[in-house]
Amino acid sequence: MIFKKGKLNKITDVTGIRVGHKTLADGDIQTGVTVILPHSGNIFKEKLIAGAFVINGFGKTTGLMQINELGTIETPIVLTNTLSVGTAYSALVKYMLSQNKDIGETTGSVNPIICECNDSVLNDIRSLAVKEEVVFEAINNACQDFECGSLGAGRGMVCHQLKGGIGSSSRIIKIEEKEYTLGTLVLSNHSILEELIINGKPIGKELASKLFKNEPADKLFEDELTDKKNEEEKGSIITIIATDIPLSLRQLTRLCKRVPLGLAMTGAYCGNGSGEIAIAFSTANKVFHYPANAVNDYSFLSDTKIDLIFRALKSSVEESVLNSLFSSHTVKGKRGKIVKAIEI
Amino acid sequence: MIFKKGKLNKITDVTGIRVGHKTLADGDIQTGVTVILPHSGNIFKEKLIAGAFVINGFGKTTGLMQINELGTIETPIVLTNTLSVGTAYSALVKYMLSQNKDIGETTGSVNPIICECNDSVLNDIRSLAVKEEVVFEAINNACQDFECGSLGAGRGMVCHQLKGGIGSSSRIIKIEEKEYTLGTLVLSNHSILEELIINGKPIGKELASKLFKNEPADKLFEDELTDKKNEEEKGSIITIIATDIPLSLRQLTRLCKRVPLGLAMTGAYCGNGSGEIAIAFSTANKVFHYPANAVNDYSFLSDTKIDLIFRALKSSVEESVLNSLFSSHTVKGKRGKIVKAIEI
Amino acid sequence: MIFKKGKLNKITDVTGIRVGHKTLADGDIQTGVTVILPHSGNIFKEKLIAGAFVINGFGKTTGLMQINELGTIETPIVLTNTLSVGTAYSALVKYMLSQNKDIGETTGSVNPIICECNDSVLNDIRSLAVKEEVVFEAINNACQDFECGSLGAGRGMVCHQLKGGIGSSSRIIKIEEKEYTLGTLVLSNHSILEELIINGKPIGKELASKLFKNEPADKLFEDELTDKKNEEEKGSIITIIATDIPLSLRQLTRLCKRVPLGLAMTGAYCGNGSGEIAIAFSTANKVFHYPANAVNDYSFLSDTKIDLIFRALKSSVEESVLNSLFSSHTVKGKRGKIVKAIEI
Amino acid sequence: MIFKKGKLNKITDVTGIRVGHKTLADGDIQTGVTVILPHSGNIFKEKLIAGAFVINGFGKTTGLMQINELGTIETPIVLTNTLSVGTAYSALVKYMLSQNKDIGETTGSVNPIICECNDSVLNDIRSLAVKEEVVFEAINNACQDFECGSLGAGRGMVCHQLKGGIGSSSRIIKIEEKEYTLGTLVLSNHSILEELIINGKPIGKELASKLFKNEPADKLFEDELTDKKNEEEKGSIITIIATDIPLSLRQLTRLCKRVPLGLAMTGAYCGNGSGEIAIAFSTANKVFHYPANAVNDYSFLSDTKIDLIFRALKSSVEESVLNSLFSSHTVKGKRGKIVKAIEI
Repeated sequence: MIFKKGKLNKITDVTGIRVGHKTLADGDIQTGVTVILPHSGNIFKEKLIAGAFVINGFGKTTGLMQINELGTIETPIVLTNTLSVGTAYSALVKYMLSQNKDIGETTGSVNPIICECNDSVLNDIRSLAVKEEVVFEAINNACQDFECGSLGAGRGMVCHQLKGGIGSSSRIIKIEEKEYTLGTLVLSNHSILEELIINGKPIGKELASKLFKNEPADKLFEDELTDKKNEEEKGSIITIIATDIPLSLRQLTRLCKRVPLGLAMTGAYCGNGSGEIAIAFSTANKVFHYPANAVNDYSFLSDTKIDLIFRALKSSVEESVLNSLFSSHTVKGKRGKIVKAIEI
Repeated sequence: MIFKKGKLNKITDVTGIRVGHKTLADGDIQTGVTVILPHSGNIFKEKLIAGAFVINGFGKTTGLMQINELGTIETPIVLTNTLSVGTAYSALVKYMLSQNKDIGETTGSVNPIICECNDSVLNDIRSLAVKEEVVFEAINNACQDFECGSLGAGRGMVCHQLKGGIGSSSRIIKIEEKEYTLGTLVLSNHSILEELIINGKPIGKELASKLFKNEPADKLFEDELTDKKNEEEKGSIITIIATDIPLSLRQLTRLCKRVPLGLAMTGAYCGNGSGEIAIAFSTANKVFHYPANAVNDYSFLSDTKIDLIFRALKSSVEESVLNSLFSSHTVKGKRGKIVKAIEI
Repeated sequence: MIFKKGKLNKITDVTGIRVGHKTLADGDIQTGVTVILPHSGNIFKEKLIAGAFVINGFGKTTGLMQINELGTIETPIVLTNTLSVGTAYSALVKYMLSQNKDIGETTGSVNPIICECNDSVLNDIRSLAVKEEVVFEAINNACQDFECGSLGAGRGMVCHQLKGGIGSSSRIIKIEEKEYTLGTLVLSNHSILEELIINGKPIGKELASKLFKNEPADKLFEDELTDKKNEEEKGSIITIIATDIPLSLRQLTRLCKRVPLGLAMTGAYCGNGSGEIAIAFSTANKVFHYPANAVNDYSFLSDTKIDLIFRALKSSVEESVLNSLFSSHTVKGKRGKIVKAIEI
Repeated sequence: MIFKKGKLNKITDVTGIRVGHKTLADGDIQTGVTVILPHSGNIFKEKLIAGAFVINGFGKTTGLMQINELGTIETPIVLTNTLSVGTAYSALVKYMLSQNKDIGETTGSVNPIICECNDSVLNDIRSLAVKEEVVFEAINNACQDFECGSLGAGRGMVCHQLKGGIGSSSRIIKIEEKEYTLGTLVLSNHSILEELIINGKPIGKELASKLFKNEPADKLFEDELTDKKNEEEKGSIITIIATDIPLSLRQLTRLCKRVPLGLAMTGAYCGNGSGEIAIAFSTANKVFHYPANAVNDYSFLSDTKIDLIFRALKSSVEESVLNSLFSSHTVKGKRGKIVKAIEI
């Protein structure tokens, strides 16, 4: 099945979604924040149905517990580095308080969604360089035709030992004559060069000898690249799925569970230290914070029509990872450490 | 079965555990932080086996995903109010970085555990009064013979519409002639007066007429106390379980799943808005961050001996909630709002 | 909150639900089958939304995996003894095949739901006395005003070391002037006399001296009754929840997670060997096997209105367990073993 | 990483494991039973640590609930067709009763593990042709050097619209100079020809025109092969993982969660109707039904060494699916329906 792609071939092909970056790139500091705004209204008052799945829970993403319990998201989704989750959380709380005078007064609290990967290869993560303003700027920068690659939260990320970061893709799915859009965005920071696959071809060794010419690939794989001293993948990959197809919490969770199928195609093996998280939301139904009625109507796609979506998702996730590699450029970071961009 | 109680009848009867508070009590600000230190060594280098369970996920506790994946805790457990989770997270990150120069450099990241309840009835939660120093002070205040009631994270909490907060209890369990200790600590902020049960007696109406004399209890239940305008329980209850019994992740998770049995006995119904989370850890096995060997030995109790522990847990959780009520005193908070302590 | 009860105070107060028993009671054979028919139409073609939760998974209930994945039930629910699950499964398959010529031909398969408890104290369970006909007869016997106690699947069950079995109860819940019904049915075979609580009163010792006069209660608890030789609770309790309130898979699962709150009130501690399973379904929405459209409408209650249901459920589950005790009579079974009915 | 393969390149390279088939192949009946015996002793008395994961729960596998709760398997694993689960369950109960006189008498019950796929394309599944004797014969036929392809439970299975069935593979993993073995076995009955990938090459169209010469591939994909009338994948894939590496329940569950990574490589998309289940067990630790002591010792691999296992697993699962295709031969079944074996 060859799916048509959306106009931008990005998650923002789903109507209403915007993405914003703020990049910090200065010597030892190579990090940032990326924000996904699910719709242009007040997301706390008009929540969207969402699901999530933890493929490998070596990660610190916040907000999943409440997504699973209530089946909604009620804030933008913020991506940043691992040790800055607290700061991003506080910033998102302040943003939500500023938009909603009722939170903590006449209504309850708010569930901030912060996702993270560990960018400590290129970024001096211990310096906690991300301040609350970085989150606010990323929100302000949100637009439809956003850039991918080594920027925003993706600035310091390393994917298959090459420069990774933000990648995105989209697919058009026709169900009974109606066209829907599914989009994915990844923050890629996972796996090793030896396992890299592009369009079905295991290309790691070839790339290794091209990029690291003075070393035989086998030695590279055994020593420097596989980082034998630590023997632990420290990466992660966050996948955000958006769609305008009317899907339920249960169905969106099913999408999230299928993210590994796409990741596998470029060489993911979901290493021990790789926090692999997927969050999916649909713009089709709104869940009102103050519902007009006790009983409300929702529309959902029949499961008998869902297979095309699963196939489109696999394809879109695979392309998003590749897009994160091909959109990135070589970055020099912490103590002069260089991570090269892919060259083919 | 009447279980013996530990010497202090607190979670700190489990050897090595300390609890510290820092209270903020000044007019509209009635909040704070409580910290549980699982052992006296470096908890990041010598992790403890832990499990968790989400009874009702209307909550923002961080760190559970990694507990479930790796089966360990590697930081102290911090309790605070809902909107201060980000600040507490950043503070705990800084504390862990100061203790571990390798985090973010030669090793990966760290998984902070921050639990919360919403204290906005008594506390001006929107002012975000908890600063990072509050966390550091709570850690510094940690001791074995800690106080319970309206202090630390418990300062502004409301339990069964009475003053709640920190409660704790412990039980001695004899297995094949050896005495073990199980302790529980709650941050109680849940349920309604109408449902309150003490020692099997539904005592809500009686208490209501005693505490709120000028109103008939039925009216109270219908109007003010049940807060019909919002119709949503905004509370939560966090339960921390500690033991020196050698239990596995699987077994500790089983303990967490049985916490509602104890909560039920004092009148919990796990309302929609009540984030009910349990975390359990055992001090019996250590999991080293840098293990000496690829394969390591652990001791675990046979499941055939676990029933006594389940029975002790139910009893200890029930007493911990009551302890949180009986240790608390009347507190006047945000805009003069008064929440009365229980009187029997 | 005192909830009104349904007319029969049984699960069948929810319109359309019928329950049927077939009892086998002859010397060493004391067992049977109980069937819950969720509605009077073709349940495979018109599925109901359902959720499930495993409180303690020492059990063999079939069908939960697909309930969790697809959020529906498509067969009657069959209760029987542990070793007869296979026979009941085959019988239910045959029943479904006879009703649906398309299964295994032009459509896929069917997901039989068989729940079980271990009745081996009173029943010679190794003789596998339940044949397929027993299931068919139980289905044929289904009616609205069914009996509770020591019959059907409940014939050989032991609850708190007294005669248990089938118990049921119902509650009327008023939401915005509309009356809904919630009903529960239990197959009770769990816990010990020492932990029994009735209306808040721990009544185990008193009952023990009444029922087993020639032994001091303490000795009874230590020896015979607690069955020290095996030290393992071999019981279980199955809870089926039905309602006409329009609830989603997510919401029905939330109900199931709150079943332990009701069980706790009569003295459950969810022992190691006690398979504790809850299944809930709503008759309000139908999910068609052959949906007319790709996208379909469903109605769901707002979570902001769900607290009353949680409170009603706790109360109904507690009463269902007591009902199973008070409806039962003393049974003499395998090798003359007698299990006494409760007497107060 | 190129892993060495085991001597037989089958799951039985893990010492002690045997696999047995019994095939029913007669006209409309094309089905059977495959059994995996985890060790040569009494598996009920000496249980093995096991984990499981449900990738897509449109399936009827029994026994997973107890695996998740207790972390062990205590019976052989039986594979058969979907509607024969009940019969296989009863047969396995009888086999276990015959081996263990204490079950249902002085000890509790037993947890039979029956996995299934729907073979109704080739097999008259409604005839329920699998009788209990078929299970007993499969157990008796168990050996180390078993056959793969269209036999046993695999007889009627269809994989990527080609003849599938039983496939197996193994990998040798060296951890600190010690060689361990990981083996996988699949019952393949999933996905569609259009998605088939072999060694990274999407080969579906090419194969379609080769195998179904009189039709253009595009038409085939749209009509007959994708079975537009039903629009639902009715397949499934069961994956059994065995190893002698000392892994815990938690770690074995992590292996199961990574099965989709291997399945993805040959073109799985985990369709709606495809029950995708993985069960993993380790032969390294035994859990005794009657433990000698209250506290027992176990050895587990450090998570810091687990990445090689994840990579080996992905590779072994991919090869197992291909092995199921390449070992199979063309089968003519129900009403003359022919499913062709792969030809390259």
